[in-house]
Amino acid sequence: MSESFFFHSPVKVFVEKDPYEVLSDFLSDSCRIGVVSGKVAILKTGFKEFLLKSFPDKEFFFYDDISENPRINEVIKGGRFLRDSKVEKIIAFGGGSALDAGKACAIFATNNRPFYDLMADNNYERPIPLLAVPTTCGTGSEMNHYCIITDLEKVDKVNFNKPDLFPKYAMLWSEYLKSLDETLLLWTVYDAFSHAMEGYLSKRSNRFSDILAMESMRIILDNLKSYSNSKRMDLSKLQFASALSGAVILHTGTTILHALGYYLTNVHGIQHGLANALLIPRYLMMCEGKGVEKIDVIRNIEKELHFSIVDSIKDVLGDRVIKLLSGVDTEKMVDYALNKPNSLSTPFVVTKDYILRHFS
Amino acid sequence: MSESFFFHSPVKVFVEKDPYEVLSDFLSDSCRIGVVSGKVAILKTGFKEFLLKSFPDKEFFFYDDISENPRINEVIKGGRFLRDSKVEKIIAFGGGSALDAGKACAIFATNNRPFYDLMADNNYERPIPLLAVPTTCGTGSEMNHYCIITDLEKVDKVNFNKPDLFPKYAMLWSEYLKSLDETLLLWTVYDAFSHAMEGYLSKRSNRFSDILAMESMRIILDNLKSYSNSKRMDLSKLQFASALSGAVILHTGTTILHALGYYLTNVHGIQHGLANALLIPRYLMMCEGKGVEKIDVIRNIEKELHFSIVDSIKDVLGDRVIKLLSGVDTEKMVDYALNKPNSLSTPFVVTKDYILRHFS
Ligand SMILES: [Fe+2]
Ligand SMILES: [Fe+2]
Repeated sequence: MSESFFFHSPVKVFVEKDPYEVLSDFLSDSCRIGVVSGKVAILKTGFKEFLLKSFPDKEFFFYDDISENPRINEVIKGGRFLRDSKVEKIIAFGGGSALDAGKACAIFATNNRPFYDLMADNNYERPIPLLAVPTTCGTGSEMNHYCIITDLEKVDKVNFNKPDLFPKYAMLWSEYLKSLDETLLLWTVYDAFSHAMEGYLSKRSNRFSDILAMESMRIILDNLKSYSNSKRMDLSKLQFASALSGAVILHTGTTILHALGYYLTNVHGIQHGLANALLIPRYLMMCEGKGVEKIDVIRNIEKELHFSIVDSIKDVLGDRVIKLLSGVDTEKMVDYALNKPNSLSTPFVVTKDYILRHFS
Repeated sequence: MSESFFFHSPVKVFVEKDPYEVLSDFLSDSCRIGVVSGKVAILKTGFKEFLLKSFPDKEFFFYDDISENPRINEVIKGGRFLRDSKVEKIIAFGGGSALDAGKACAIFATNNRPFYDLMADNNYERPIPLLAVPTTCGTGSEMNHYCIITDLEKVDKVNFNKPDLFPKYAMLWSEYLKSLDETLLLWTVYDAFSHAMEGYLSKRSNRFSDILAMESMRIILDNLKSYSNSKRMDLSKLQFASALSGAVILHTGTTILHALGYYLTNVHGIQHGLANALLIPRYLMMCEGKGVEKIDVIRNIEKELHFSIVDSIKDVLGDRVIKLLSGVDTEKMVDYALNKPNSLSTPFVVTKDYILRHFS
């Protein structure tokens, strides 16, 4: 019997196409436009000004205070704001947080209901059509229907998703990445690498997601190598690689690596991509120790490029790794991670003992 | 300035998933189902019987006489039949002809208008939702919004397409390929290879389509090699490769190779995949003669696999190539091809003289 799987990549992605053209098309038949974003990037990139100047005949409603780890009450409130503003289209602009929040707001705008109530129900009103503009090269959120939302009460990250929460369009315009702090840029790149790598190794990987994952890892490694040699990276290619990795996890989800990372973010406030970077070398060792065969393919890509992801992380993070992990209650972290559904897709049998061993 | 492009792959593809489950889902809220297919495969594979037995509560309306090169009047008539039957969903079952015809019927069912009139107008009613079941591994039609329809009066093949003519679902079930004649199977495989190869070399290729094209060529070559060694091929993998190649040409279209092939089919009745097989070796020589750089990547895949597409074609077709081409008025063929829009994407400047030189 042949392997059985499912694939698609429904988001229409415009790569380096003039933003005015893309937005004119997306907004053409609408007057009231919601914009969901964080506070900083939308100003720093000039995107807000660009919108207001380029489309004087449209009315924009900005919900532009999304926090780094968007919370349940933020998306509920955003939904209400967009509903009350009667917006017909939504632009989500920013990193993973803003895009995830934007997608969630788009569905709470048309569904005036409590968070977990809507999450559990397959009967709901369609979300408002959304265009995603990523301003990092890590999230991949523009390619899938996941919204990672923080539940402050439970000190937990929840994956809220619905089959029609895909953005209609994604607009990759690498110019918007240029205002990004270099350190943060690198962390988001490690996040993207983690998506591709976890997806590639995942139990849920398939022939389609594997093609995208391998290419994504190759592009990212190639750029990290170039960064290590000359501090230069091709932002446009990295953003494409990040989108590919977002399409990978649409099929595979993430694994225990992300679950462990969520704990580091929830409890220790460690930035999401940085948390993943801390964990990647250990995760590779865990997989290797359990004889996960597909590791060889990753090693081969590394060999071809004469550069390894672990060297890159050592290079960039230095001894920060040990410092950051030193205050962490690793037992609590592993307990948290083992309870997340992500850990089920890990390509080996996950036991507390085995995972813990890699943090001593 | 970075390369600007667009990508997506909107069709939801189920690979080797139980047909009963896939169809139950697709047909769930509908009672009247149209089925578009050729005469033979739907009986030989047992698909018709399966439908009638598995879904006794649905009413099926069969339009099951699609010819090998579906004509304008066939899709107009089919549209009328499906409209009069008030079908809510359509299953297109068969090779490229049946799938192309099915997609076209789905839009003429909701648009009672002359062929070229609808073709030229962007204002139209949405087509009836369609699920595509390919029974060859060549067409790729399940992945895109193209319908290649024959205009008998003009002795021409026309690419009828609309942005929402994508099937909603594609169902790849390699069991249905087993009733296919081996020769025909090989021809369809050459068609798929041609889609991937032409797409890869096309002026309109992009970073996304290239990933899919390279993987598609690799899978196909690997299987042709195995066929050459042991007469065995993995139909499931070939069908996946064919779907990938369909997603490639969704982005790139085809090139002058397909345009030349259309002439061989229109005028000499040569099967579509066979026509492409005849042309592939010559097309590679044309590209090589003009220094098309990406040819090297194809040569590298061939080297890795220790097998070349030209050897495979020689192997399978033998001296049939010369026989089939001997009666062809090559000048007329080239004139026809140069007039097709496909030739514009050819990766070198196409002149009558240069193309003709490869047929003397
Ligand atoms: Fe992530
Ligand atoms: Fe074809």
